[in-house]
Amino acid sequence: MPYWEISTPAAAFTPEQRVALSTEITTIYTTHANLPAFYVVILFKAMPEDSMFVGGTPNNNFVRIRADHIAREFDSSDIKALFMAEVESVLAPHVKDRGFDWEIHFDETDFELWRVQGLVPPAPDSDVEKQWATQNQPTPYDRVSP
Amino acid sequence: MPYWEISTPAAAFTPEQRVALSTEITTIYTTHANLPAFYVVILFKAMPEDSMFVGGTPNNNFVRIRADHIAREFDSSDIKALFMAEVESVLAPHVKDRGFDWEIHFDETDFELWRVQGLVPPAPDSDVEKQWATQNQPTPYDRVSP
Amino acid sequence: MPYWEISTPAAAFTPEQRVALSTEITTIYTTHANLPAFYVVILFKAMPEDSMFVGGTPNNNFVRIRADHIAREFDSSDIKALFMAEVESVLAPHVKDRGFDWEIHFDETDFELWRVQGLVPPAPDSDVEKQWATQNQPTPYDRVSP
Repeated sequence: MPYWEISTPAAAFTPEQRVALSTEITTIYTTHANLPAFYVVILFKAMPEDSMFVGGTPNNNFVRIRADHIAREFDSSDIKALFMAEVESVLAPHVKDRGFDWEIHFDETDFELWRVQGLVPPAPDSDVEKQWATQNQPTPYDRVSP
Repeated sequence: MPYWEISTPAAAFTPEQRVALSTEITTIYTTHANLPAFYVVILFKAMPEDSMFVGGTPNNNFVRIRADHIAREFDSSDIKALFMAEVESVLAPHVKDRGFDWEIHFDETDFELWRVQGLVPPAPDSDVEKQWATQNQPTPYDRVSP
Repeated sequence: MPYWEISTPAAAFTPEQRVALSTEITTIYTTHANLPAFYVVILFKAMPEDSMFVGGTPNNNFVRIRADHIAREFDSSDIKALFMAEVESVLAPHVKDRGFDWEIHFDETDFELWRVQGLVPPAPDSDVEKQWATQNQPTPYDRVSP
């Protein structure tokens, strides 16, 4: 689950900067939702000049993030606001403080239409999920009918 | 908000053609929904040969658009149909009349899981949104608890 | 409708392998849902080294699929599970058996916010949809008000 696509100017992030940013994003989820780290997938998309348009004008200084949440669903507006504030605080040194424009939005998608290494992901906060988090990898498990 | 990804053959649109198309798409939203122009983000994705498949066959003459609506939600089937007709009329000279195949679909995502330059976007049709539209940029504002 | 984006290491799939995989994916939909083959759109995205991160670490051996379903909506958890199992069995020889890591998730989006070649797609399982499937192309048709 969280699946992030980060579209950026081609030279915006070095591999080292990508590691740093994606590690910090991962930590949001491992810390606040106890997700296995490997659930956090981030794709960096290097966009060529004049391929990102804002209001009809090319913006070659723009970081645009779209992301899907699959493993968890927010259950209140307050929690959404807290999460978004946390995301912004993580992005700030990598994006805002470096002078980029930026925008981000999330969608929430269906837990049941998701597979990791061919496996049905365990229920949120279940023992198996905790085990996956500790191992930081998915392993087959016995699924019990509800 | 509207966030469009336009996947095209690599040479399909010159920078000037991208400006023209993205400007016309922007105008749909500024005219019909009074959105700030800068809300309209369009990414052009130049696809290499044999990377787009339709029914199992490569289609190197295909324009495929997927887009998310965030700032507004349609509230009736009639309005959706009107919107889609407007989109098609804007696309026609750029896509249909140039002989491309094309397809488009939209998703609607959660207003609360969206930030622009780190700011909580103002409520639809609020005074602050109108101000952002006039200025064509986001500026901090006092948020009042509901 | 089904709209798949398959992000892969740059050299993961030859054009022939893309044809084979996308043909088999298409067959899932034509066989089980009687969809027209041309509804199945698959974009292969060749990702450069160190642009896909899993848990903060680059994974250059990763196949990540995100897809939207538009033409049909699943109506039970059981059918979702059957579908996902079928998808995994199709992916296995192309992905799992070749030693890639992989993950997949689907979203379901609004039928009314979708157009194919500018046309309103016919209702699921309607005579027009069957005709489109037989022809394997969309053609204009008389729409009757409900």
